[in-house]
Amino acid sequence: MKALEEKILREGQVYPGGVLKVGSFLNHQIDVPFMVEMGREFHRLYKDEKITKILTIETSGIAIAVMCAAEFGVPVVFAKKHQTKNLTNDCYVTPIHSYTHGNDYEARVEKQFLNAEDRVLIIDDFLANGAALDGLIDIIKQSGAHCVGCGIAIEKVFQQGGARIREQGIRVESLAMIGEMTEDGQITFAE
Amino acid sequence: MKALEEKILREGQVYPGGVLKVGSFLNHQIDVPFMVEMGREFHRLYKDEKITKILTIETSGIAIAVMCAAEFGVPVVFAKKHQTKNLTNDCYVTPIHSYTHGNDYEARVEKQFLNAEDRVLIIDDFLANGAALDGLIDIIKQSGAHCVGCGIAIEKVFQQGGARIREQGIRVESLAMIGEMTEDGQITFAE
Repeated sequence: MKALEEKILREGQVYPGGVLKVGSFLNHQIDVPFMVEMGREFHRLYKDEKITKILTIETSGIAIAVMCAAEFGVPVVFAKKHQTKNLTNDCYVTPIHSYTHGNDYEARVEKQFLNAEDRVLIIDDFLANGAALDGLIDIIKQSGAHCVGCGIAIEKVFQQGGARIREQGIRVESLAMIGEMTEDGQITFAE
Repeated sequence: MKALEEKILREGQVYPGGVLKVGSFLNHQIDVPFMVEMGREFHRLYKDEKITKILTIETSGIAIAVMCAAEFGVPVVFAKKHQTKNLTNDCYVTPIHSYTHGNDYEARVEKQFLNAEDRVLIIDDFLANGAALDGLIDIIKQSGAHCVGCGIAIEKVFQQGGARIREQGIRVESLAMIGEMTEDGQITFAE
């Protein structure tokens, strides 16, 4: 998606340790009309897949997921990173290692919100090591639903998550694929 | 908003300790067409206020905030509950006590995303004790922006947050106002 690549070049900032900051439009401030465009692009890519549900994980995936779901006319379910008072115990649970925060946590989705009849599209903002995506795919497997594929805003191709998930036969569509990021802030997109 | 009251009566579940569970449409699974309707209702209420930005706090407010922002054609900024690698240190910071989780945390918004020219509408899913709203109002004050008011999906009128914030002269519009919730699950709306 050319418009996303241009936006990353214009507004993205590279931080030490391979961190790409896109807080001006994606994960702190949200450029809502641009989210609408991204939602339409995911719809274009997956429109023949009879999707019944969009699955994401809190927090940064929610805005894109909601806009994408508006195109498909289906609900969003977002996996929770914490057990809270208003979550039942009847959940699919999967362990996830966060490379960003350097810790482990359990993601959970209440069983009533995913079932074997669902055809699920996973939406998330970033794909790097793929740990969050592995977790969401595992939750879909537990539910017996079918994982139609993944729609990612920004994939860091120089990390291994995307390759590993595609090797499992799962379709992954990323709207911008970053091939290289240098310490001095240069970003190169992969073909 | 009659449709929200009806949805709460139909799908909401009362849990011990005054917890209202609306995970089927608001804060776990998200009923996207319904979020669109709520966004339109907030727009109807605040359309003359020349709003430049919607402010919310992760996680459950994001979906409503994004749909509301789509109506106004302005960006969303969501306050973060944790310091993360992709957040600069140049932030407005405010302490918040979570009654839900029984802990204290700091909410933060990068200074570049709120400034004295902004006219800000706060959007959140719940208003009970009002601690999160107090924090967001404090962040707006720090930035020099003008707080136009608050748009809340569900207010628990039997808790004190709404009254306290309105006493400060801040407009609060709640789409459903719960006057009473009994242990056996009865919900009564306030006038």
